[in-house]
Amino acid sequence: MLKQEVLQELATIVGRDNIATERQDLLCYSYDATQMEFLPDAVVHPANTEEVAAIMRLANSAGFPVFPRGAGSGFSGGALPKTGGIVLVTTRMNRILRIDTENLIAEVEPGVVTEQFQQEVEKLGLFYPPDPASLKFSTLGGNVAENAGGPRAVKYGCTKDFVMGLEVVLPTGAIIRTGGETYKGVVGYDMTKLLCGSEGTLGIITKIVFKLLPYPDAKKTMLTIFDSIDGAAKAVSSIIGGKIIPTTLEFMDYATLQCVDRRFNLGIPSEGRAVLLIEVDGDRDLIEKQASQIHDIIRPLGLVQFRAAKDKAESEQLWQVRRLVSPSLRDVNPDKFNEDIVVPRSRVPDVIRRIEAIRQRHDIPIVNFGHAGDGNIHVNIMVDKKIAGMEEKAHQAIREVFQAALELGGTMSGEHGVGLSKAPFIELELTPDQIAAMKAIKQALDPNNILNPGKMFPW
Amino acid sequence: MLKQEVLQELATIVGRDNIATERQDLLCYSYDATQMEFLPDAVVHPANTEEVAAIMRLANSAGFPVFPRGAGSGFSGGALPKTGGIVLVTTRMNRILRIDTENLIAEVEPGVVTEQFQQEVEKLGLFYPPDPASLKFSTLGGNVAENAGGPRAVKYGCTKDFVMGLEVVLPTGAIIRTGGETYKGVVGYDMTKLLCGSEGTLGIITKIVFKLLPYPDAKKTMLTIFDSIDGAAKAVSSIIGGKIIPTTLEFMDYATLQCVDRRFNLGIPSEGRAVLLIEVDGDRDLIEKQASQIHDIIRPLGLVQFRAAKDKAESEQLWQVRRLVSPSLRDVNPDKFNEDIVVPRSRVPDVIRRIEAIRQRHDIPIVNFGHAGDGNIHVNIMVDKKIAGMEEKAHQAIREVFQAALELGGTMSGEHGVGLSKAPFIELELTPDQIAAMKAIKQALDPNNILNPGKMFPW
Ligand SMILES: Cc1cc2nc3c(=O)[nH]c(=O)nc-3n(C[C@H](O)[C@H](O)[C@H](O)COP(=O)(O)OP(=O)(O)OC[C@H]3O[C@@H](n4cnc5c(N)ncnc54)[C@H](O)[C@@H]3O)c2cc1C
Ligand SMILES: Cc1cc2nc3c(=O)[nH]c(=O)nc-3n(C[C@H](O)[C@H](O)[C@H](O)COP(=O)(O)OP(=O)(O)OC[C@H]3O[C@@H](n4cnc5c(N)ncnc54)[C@H](O)[C@@H]3O)c2cc1C
Repeated sequence: MLKQEVLQELATIVGRDNIATERQDLLCYSYDATQMEFLPDAVVHPANTEEVAAIMRLANSAGFPVFPRGAGSGFSGGALPKTGGIVLVTTRMNRILRIDTENLIAEVEPGVVTEQFQQEVEKLGLFYPPDPASLKFSTLGGNVAENAGGPRAVKYGCTKDFVMGLEVVLPTGAIIRTGGETYKGVVGYDMTKLLCGSEGTLGIITKIVFKLLPYPDAKKTMLTIFDSIDGAAKAVSSIIGGKIIPTTLEFMDYATLQCVDRRFNLGIPSEGRAVLLIEVDGDRDLIEKQASQIHDIIRPLGLVQFRAAKDKAESEQLWQVRRLVSPSLRDVNPDKFNEDIVVPRSRVPDVIRRIEAIRQRHDIPIVNFGHAGDGNIHVNIMVDKKIAGMEEKAHQAIREVFQAALELGGTMSGEHGVGLSKAPFIELELTPDQIAAMKAIKQALDPNNILNPGKMFPW
Repeated sequence: MLKQEVLQELATIVGRDNIATERQDLLCYSYDATQMEFLPDAVVHPANTEEVAAIMRLANSAGFPVFPRGAGSGFSGGALPKTGGIVLVTTRMNRILRIDTENLIAEVEPGVVTEQFQQEVEKLGLFYPPDPASLKFSTLGGNVAENAGGPRAVKYGCTKDFVMGLEVVLPTGAIIRTGGETYKGVVGYDMTKLLCGSEGTLGIITKIVFKLLPYPDAKKTMLTIFDSIDGAAKAVSSIIGGKIIPTTLEFMDYATLQCVDRRFNLGIPSEGRAVLLIEVDGDRDLIEKQASQIHDIIRPLGLVQFRAAKDKAESEQLWQVRRLVSPSLRDVNPDKFNEDIVVPRSRVPDVIRRIEAIRQRHDIPIVNFGHAGDGNIHVNIMVDKKIAGMEEKAHQAIREVFQAALELGGTMSGEHGVGLSKAPFIELELTPDQIAAMKAIKQALDPNNILNPGKMFPW
């Protein structure tokens, strides 16, 4: 519990209207997209960098933890106040400060919603590629803190690849800039990339300088169905080996296909065992050429259907198949554990086979889809928590899925991060020396362990 | 001076043939591409990670500094043993461990020479884009430690953008892996990017996992000459604004042109004030189309010459103009101070104007060329050290050049790093809080200040 004087001081910093301590208000900030819940002692809504810095200085002197939060759409509990303390919400810091069309740079505050930013830059003919499925509500600060990815990552990379510089309030309250506004720069350590993906444990991001691209001329969408997972996986490496880097290479396995087809009756051929939704973008002539090259490349790989959209409306129709996945899953079971392992591209068939074995061993439904182009598979373990023992089975299955990914040279998470939910597993992936080096950095920047304590590592 | 027992132990670790203590041997490792010189106490040539780790553990217990070194081609003194101690040379660790053509990944030891690696991957139809001008002798470990760039960075990025993972011996002697072999991964902090560009102060890189690309189908080179710097600069942003990201956009100013033309008589039109050497790569049809689009875009910008190469031989001829720059410079004056500032692309004309004013104020020859696509300008201050006072003038001019770059939103260095030569200037660019945060990280990982002490920051 925070002392009355501390709450007083916080109110002085952010203004009386921007601090909440009533239970019904706190509840709104006690959960995220995981199934965990922790009540904060107070929620503050600072308006600018100076207020954030003042809060951090107070936190250090009074000794209470601070949990930064954007939209709370995180999939690993990163924004949850596990130990109590305050949740610091960035949503009032939501201005796009400038879009520089000559240098293809934009500067924003962290509370800007991803999609809103995309739309603003697109109005100017520019392109901000990172496209997490949560873009309608997630904040850019949360995207940077989690290094959010999306279907376009195979060609364009994740959020981190577009961050040129940051303004950060360090855990001690010092305000620093990292990186800059130039495409190159090697003066000092790369604090920018260190902050990206640090899940709010090393600093609070208060401004972001993004790199932008010219908006691509045109795009072309193809829905392709294969008679085996191996065929689809081989298609991925053959297309890239054929010197074509598609914008997206989205994958769905048989279980996913069945879910979608059962509910929406899309007329998927009965031999279909795996789908690849492929999109290329760029020069109008080139993408037509690439589409026909792709068709030639994948034809011998057990292709049972190839549909190429002729226009935007048809493209939307093809994307529907992918978009219907989430709504269909709940038909399998009401509760979902959604993991996002990554393996080297060529190991996708192996990991799918291992997951199939795990599914059979535990007799629990598992549905796989995701970003095949970068080997990032969303493994959805569908359970009904009301059935006794099913949740425990799921937890055991999750551990085995992580082990499979790691044995195949992969990682436990490509997008969702560690936060609270994967902290207990981190020793599966990182050695004690790796963890010690990371903790040493955390301690160097946050000597009083004020900022988002208990996250990322087992402390 | 190292004690006899310590030398003994070092010899036990690396073998008697792989340690040198004779003055004539030490001399070879006392300099790099700067004009500084510091003699080490000993030079060791470890063969593998375990030997490197054993050396670091000994260094911590016996208390002597260790300076990692690749080819010693660095432009900022990063490998020089300023405080005495040992130079640790990686050139025996020079194996390409594997090239995985399916996942487009390669794993190498740090002592592999850049060009050799490029050639090996090209034999397999693959592409490793980073192309520092030193690629015939620089090592990949040195490239990673300096985040080396080159002409292709405008499209492909610098060395860091191709590093997926590392094996690193930390200053304490612990061996860790960072990153991995997957295109995505968000478990733990991004130690990989932190190590990239850390100039051998945070760890010794003992293995590197690189991402590769398919080798581009074709390329097309264009030599374009403008009647003003502004025209050339406008060309750069207009081309990119026109949705074309060239592989290279190399720039030469009037002084550079004069140097080259005086010596090699290339028949450059007398109205020529700035050159852009432009190259595009990719699909064969697309690059022809892009070349003609580029011509249309830049025609109204004071274009006085446009030559497009029809084949490889003609392309080589056009590149000659750029390659002849370095050999021509010495005609101006025998000694060169070579800086590599960066400004936002649109500020290139401004910074060139400021440099012109500095040149006039100090009456000292300055020749500018470089990577206009990313605003990275090589500022060459040409002096004759034998002329009294000229070197001092150069130093004053360098400080003013740095200030100009910083005032225009840029940085002191895009490629060459801080090392020893820019450490005295680092406070021009970084605030005390920024430096404190970086030093805290250094101290956290290197509590005894063993690895490359005295580099990067004023200590
Ligand atoms: C339906 C759905 C779909 C999703 N799809 C994707 C997807 O495709 N790809 C993907 O990568 N993720 C996805 N996610 C996960 C989530 O949306 C992303 O991680 C997103 O980046 C979180 O943004 P947020 O603003 O909601 O952050 P929050 O959940 O509020 O916070 C996430 C983490 O970031 C920290 N943080 C937030 N703001 C700051 C700041 N300004 N400074 C420092 N730290 C900060 C928090 O402390 C916390 O650790 C999805 C989530 C949902 C619910
Ligand atoms: C003619 C010439 C042209 C050049 N052109 C370019 C250019 O176009 N672009 C560019 O970016 N640079 C350029 N350089 C600078 C230089 O070549 C690069 O910085 C290169 O990356 C240095 O590699 P090296 O192996 O010579 O490293 P060294 O000079 O030996 O060392 C450089 C730094 O890296 C550290 N280091 C070396 N190996 C390791 C390791 N294994 N682990 C940890 N730290 C290590 C050293 O301690 C030192 O701080 C040029 C230099 C010359 C002489």
